[in-house]
Amino acid sequence: MPSSNESAKPAIILLSGGLDSATVLAIARDQGYSCHALAFDYGQRHRNELAACERVADALGAASHRVFSLDATAFAGSALTDDVAVPKDRDETEMTEIPATYVPARNLVFLSIALAYAESLAATDIFIGVNAIDYSGYPDCRPAFIESFIRTANLATKLGVDGNTIQIHTPLMEMTKAQIITTGTNLGVDYALTHSCYDPDPNGLACGRCDSCVLRRNGFEQAGVPDPTRYCSGRA
Amino acid sequence: MPSSNESAKPAIILLSGGLDSATVLAIARDQGYSCHALAFDYGQRHRNELAACERVADALGAASHRVFSLDATAFAGSALTDDVAVPKDRDETEMTEIPATYVPARNLVFLSIALAYAESLAATDIFIGVNAIDYSGYPDCRPAFIESFIRTANLATKLGVDGNTIQIHTPLMEMTKAQIITTGTNLGVDYALTHSCYDPDPNGLACGRCDSCVLRRNGFEQAGVPDPTRYCSGRA
Repeated sequence: MPSSNESAKPAIILLSGGLDSATVLAIARDQGYSCHALAFDYGQRHRNELAACERVADALGAASHRVFSLDATAFAGSALTDDVAVPKDRDETEMTEIPATYVPARNLVFLSIALAYAESLAATDIFIGVNAIDYSGYPDCRPAFIESFIRTANLATKLGVDGNTIQIHTPLMEMTKAQIITTGTNLGVDYALTHSCYDPDPNGLACGRCDSCVLRRNGFEQAGVPDPTRYCSGRA
Repeated sequence: MPSSNESAKPAIILLSGGLDSATVLAIARDQGYSCHALAFDYGQRHRNELAACERVADALGAASHRVFSLDATAFAGSALTDDVAVPKDRDETEMTEIPATYVPARNLVFLSIALAYAESLAATDIFIGVNAIDYSGYPDCRPAFIESFIRTANLATKLGVDGNTIQIHTPLMEMTKAQIITTGTNLGVDYALTHSCYDPDPNGLACGRCDSCVLRRNGFEQAGVPDPTRYCSGRA
């Protein structure tokens, strides 16, 4: 796979290590951007995410890949950062309520730092894999949040003041998980490199039962694409 | 001075170590909030700020005081973080253009993390010392930015979704520097504890010539309050 064109327009791609953001990176590269991948270490319990980010950035030819650390104290109280139970076996119809895996203001913090980083690289484009269809009930994945953030970003920055030019790209917003998987598969994403589970076992195998696993597995089934996820025993 | 009332409504107070945010902390305390002071270590060259934050939080009886670290790479290219010259001897009338001391998206990043921290404490109130009068030309100090951030914050968070309740308090927004100093003096702020200079000498003495020093010194003069700042030789 060719790496990003260094002379191309730069963009920041927020990576989580999961299926969605890997697909976003592939889409941004396909659109001709020079892709600067950015991940965050915010004390998340599922540390496999960060290794997956690195694998994905390498495999999809990101121009650069950085991990910024954030103080975990700012995000206390979530099942993703603290010793709070991850909800299991929820039906997709139950995923419209904000779950315990909600992390306070996470996408706002991630986008704000991505914006600072973009400005320091003179980039005006940021890609994020939020999704309003299979979104598990998080408030900061909705179109209204993204639209409001774009307005705020243009007011907050020198680049924005100069030309109202900050763009937040959300190519997955209106896709189902199956459509995301089909799109990424067509762009050559190897989903075996990604990690979605909120509660993996000590060997990094997926639980198969948290919201993230349920959405992912149903997505592969509906897309008719073989699921490469390694589940812990009984869920393979 | 009494410390904050622990049973009072909690608020996050963004501290920079400077004159403005010390005044904001005094105002929030005077309004009866239990004040959780928050400062950031983002690789700023003027490290005296962080020591000043601690002095101010202690002296004004903050209920807690935290310093969160941020990756300096995100804020590259500013005279406050990199080896770029700090502008000197600018007249106040020149301070409407964005100066080299602009740090990319800084207030957006600080407010976003303060919001996450607030939510983890079940607090809905954040205080920040932005000012639209003596503001040195920064885009992220304007009322339009703050108003847009409040809207974004309420869309980004569980607390906001539950009741549109996130409040960003900007008590200094329409005050002149002299009015800020008069207000703080009446509330018992000891401005000798604060640090405003963007380019202090190795002993921590203020240069007296950067935008921040010029605004500060003129403010004390106009308020008719003795200036406790220790300037380096020739500027006392």
